[in-house]
Amino acid sequence: MTNIEYNNELIQKYANLRRTINEEYINIHPIQRGGILTPEACKALISYGDGYSLCDNCLKGRIDQIENPPVGEFLKDMAKFLNIDNVMVTASARESKRLLMKVISKKYPKRKTVVVDSLAHYTTYLAIETNNLKVREVPNSGEPEFKIESNDYENIINQVIEQEGELPLLVVLTHVDYKYGNYNEPKPIGKICQNFRVPFLLNAAYSGGILPIDCKKDFIDFIACSGHKSMASSGPIGILGFKEEFHDDVMVNSKIVGPISLKSFPNKICTVMGCPPVYGAPLITLMASFPTIVKRTREEFVKEEAKKANYIVEYIKNINGITILGKLPKIHPLTNIKTDCFAEIAKNHPRKGFFLRDEFKKRGIIGMLPGISKEMKFSSYGLTWEQVKRFSNAFLEIIKKYAPI
Amino acid sequence: MTNIEYNNELIQKYANLRRTINEEYINIHPIQRGGILTPEACKALISYGDGYSLCDNCLKGRIDQIENPPVGEFLKDMAKFLNIDNVMVTASARESKRLLMKVISKKYPKRKTVVVDSLAHYTTYLAIETNNLKVREVPNSGEPEFKIESNDYENIINQVIEQEGELPLLVVLTHVDYKYGNYNEPKPIGKICQNFRVPFLLNAAYSGGILPIDCKKDFIDFIACSGHKSMASSGPIGILGFKEEFHDDVMVNSKIVGPISLKSFPNKICTVMGCPPVYGAPLITLMASFPTIVKRTREEFVKEEAKKANYIVEYIKNINGITILGKLPKIHPLTNIKTDCFAEIAKNHPRKGFFLRDEFKKRGIIGMLPGISKEMKFSSYGLTWEQVKRFSNAFLEIIKKYAPI
Repeated sequence: MTNIEYNNELIQKYANLRRTINEEYINIHPIQRGGILTPEACKALISYGDGYSLCDNCLKGRIDQIENPPVGEFLKDMAKFLNIDNVMVTASARESKRLLMKVISKKYPKRKTVVVDSLAHYTTYLAIETNNLKVREVPNSGEPEFKIESNDYENIINQVIEQEGELPLLVVLTHVDYKYGNYNEPKPIGKICQNFRVPFLLNAAYSGGILPIDCKKDFIDFIACSGHKSMASSGPIGILGFKEEFHDDVMVNSKIVGPISLKSFPNKICTVMGCPPVYGAPLITLMASFPTIVKRTREEFVKEEAKKANYIVEYIKNINGITILGKLPKIHPLTNIKTDCFAEIAKNHPRKGFFLRDEFKKRGIIGMLPGISKEMKFSSYGLTWEQVKRFSNAFLEIIKKYAPI
Repeated sequence: MTNIEYNNELIQKYANLRRTINEEYINIHPIQRGGILTPEACKALISYGDGYSLCDNCLKGRIDQIENPPVGEFLKDMAKFLNIDNVMVTASARESKRLLMKVISKKYPKRKTVVVDSLAHYTTYLAIETNNLKVREVPNSGEPEFKIESNDYENIINQVIEQEGELPLLVVLTHVDYKYGNYNEPKPIGKICQNFRVPFLLNAAYSGGILPIDCKKDFIDFIACSGHKSMASSGPIGILGFKEEFHDDVMVNSKIVGPISLKSFPNKICTVMGCPPVYGAPLITLMASFPTIVKRTREEFVKEEAKKANYIVEYIKNINGITILGKLPKIHPLTNIKTDCFAEIAKNHPRKGFFLRDEFKKRGIIGMLPGISKEMKFSSYGLTWEQVKRFSNAFLEIIKKYAPI
């Protein structure tokens, strides 16, 4: 007996869940733009909706070795795409970071410090915390650019060596940060890490699938990507790319033996608990979108998307009370702005800060943080030019509505 | 520049992935039956296909606190359904086990042994291994029943105390095992654990969503369930249920602080890396199927499904060369049989063991392990009576075809 009844109330609450809003609106939230499914992924999603749909023809008990559909081949193609030796799928980019830190902690048990840029995502910090490691930050230049200097990595690494008598365990660079969308060139930092012989992780959750990445050229040892954030996958699904020299550290085969049953599982990869939890929709949609991902990270597409982002910036930057934050011109379309002009309106508006979300919504645009009027974060990735112009224009319209000249 | 070209070959390989086979066939693989989507989940899947679709109206930066759609309420309803104090979603049942063992290891650092039944799933062993713990097994009675005796748990716990001077860290019972589908009554073992004051985990990956579960009545401290295995969710998604006394051990708020940025994330749950990776399709389909899950775990539905499983067993058990393994009558429809009769045919068949899969496939039935003719594992869960009869009959047809009387 359970405490819950099967009745009309229960059915009404759960049996008709729809995300209708997204069908008529542009969603400019940066976590949404890169994950929107391709038509190919939509079709694959419907076909492979059941939980273990990828496992119909699993012959070896390993998701990474499934041949039909071509998972094994896909992982090799993804490795080529990122130009790194190996690729494994994980539950998410955050999970890639967590398990990577765990495996290299085991390799270098005396090294306790992870060096990160000070714009790292909160999950980078949580991966450090959950692995009982320490964090050191590389500073940024503060407002308005919040720029990271590659050379500061060298200083911080030297400080760690001096103060702890050990190398850092890992150096992390956030390729494109969640806050200002600043693009950081990995190569100079990769070179520094190579000189110190410290493993270098690129967190490409916002960039892998949006911008071109070449791990070998940039001295990247590990890369974490997000299928649902930037690779048009339903997900959640992460990618962990790693150099061959770390293969046996990441791909650890199980050694446990049942003392009575004598069961053992030497074919299973302990690091990902056997098969990572992506047995159906997450991985199949990532695979289905892969050709588009390859296409959209080519130079002409990337340039066009940057053009849209910079168009918006140019259009709104001279509005009184708007300040563009982060480095310019934009390379990645994630943009952060201070909106003192809107904060001023909010003061006297009956809906307070919520007025801003309302006003954009009236104009067919959603994804603003509710109640916030002092700053805004958005991404124009994948919008049509018509939508880019509508979005840019909305700023002026709202300003004019409340402060008619 | 990447090493991969956007060309027709790439498009052909990935852009048209379809699982057509499942539309015309019955899939009797036990990992598939309980995860087949409800019509409500299919609709929700299409609507919430994009990666972060659940986060449109996230106000608190926590997936478990989203109100629209009603995630927070759903977790409470799921807790009522399982009759346990708290429920958190995770990437998978295996992940529930891994992170649970991690948090209680932290609570009881001297306790190093996990006691499991000897039919535990491989991921239970991997969760032990990845947490650097030791495993002890409770024996089973061997062929044909492979029965676990509740009292043996007491013996093994006493052995651990005697030999290690510490209580076991955790006792695990596999509610319904992956191999023989044996149903184990949790209550007697829960009582033993309560007497010893050892935390008790029920692995309900195959049962939660198929059979009724009452954690309070059965002295269950923790429960791991699988949305994609047994709750008609697209998933992957797991559930971790836990008693209030362990709330602060599981729901650990982040304490890390960025030394320069002074960033901190006290609202984020470290255990699940902030938000567990179920931001769209996995959780929304679980929610959409929930009313059906409540309904199908009521007595009349459960009895009907057992009836189907026992019908098949009765129908085939007298075939010469077929032995039913596991406890009878069936309570859960996962069934394992020895098929010496088919193994005999395979010896002289040009397709060897693959003939068996071929023969069933000709009859519209898939899900057999390729190449295996000595034993078979299947589940009749959710089949119509017509399908149950077709499946039962297929055994006789195949036998007759190769050994005409």
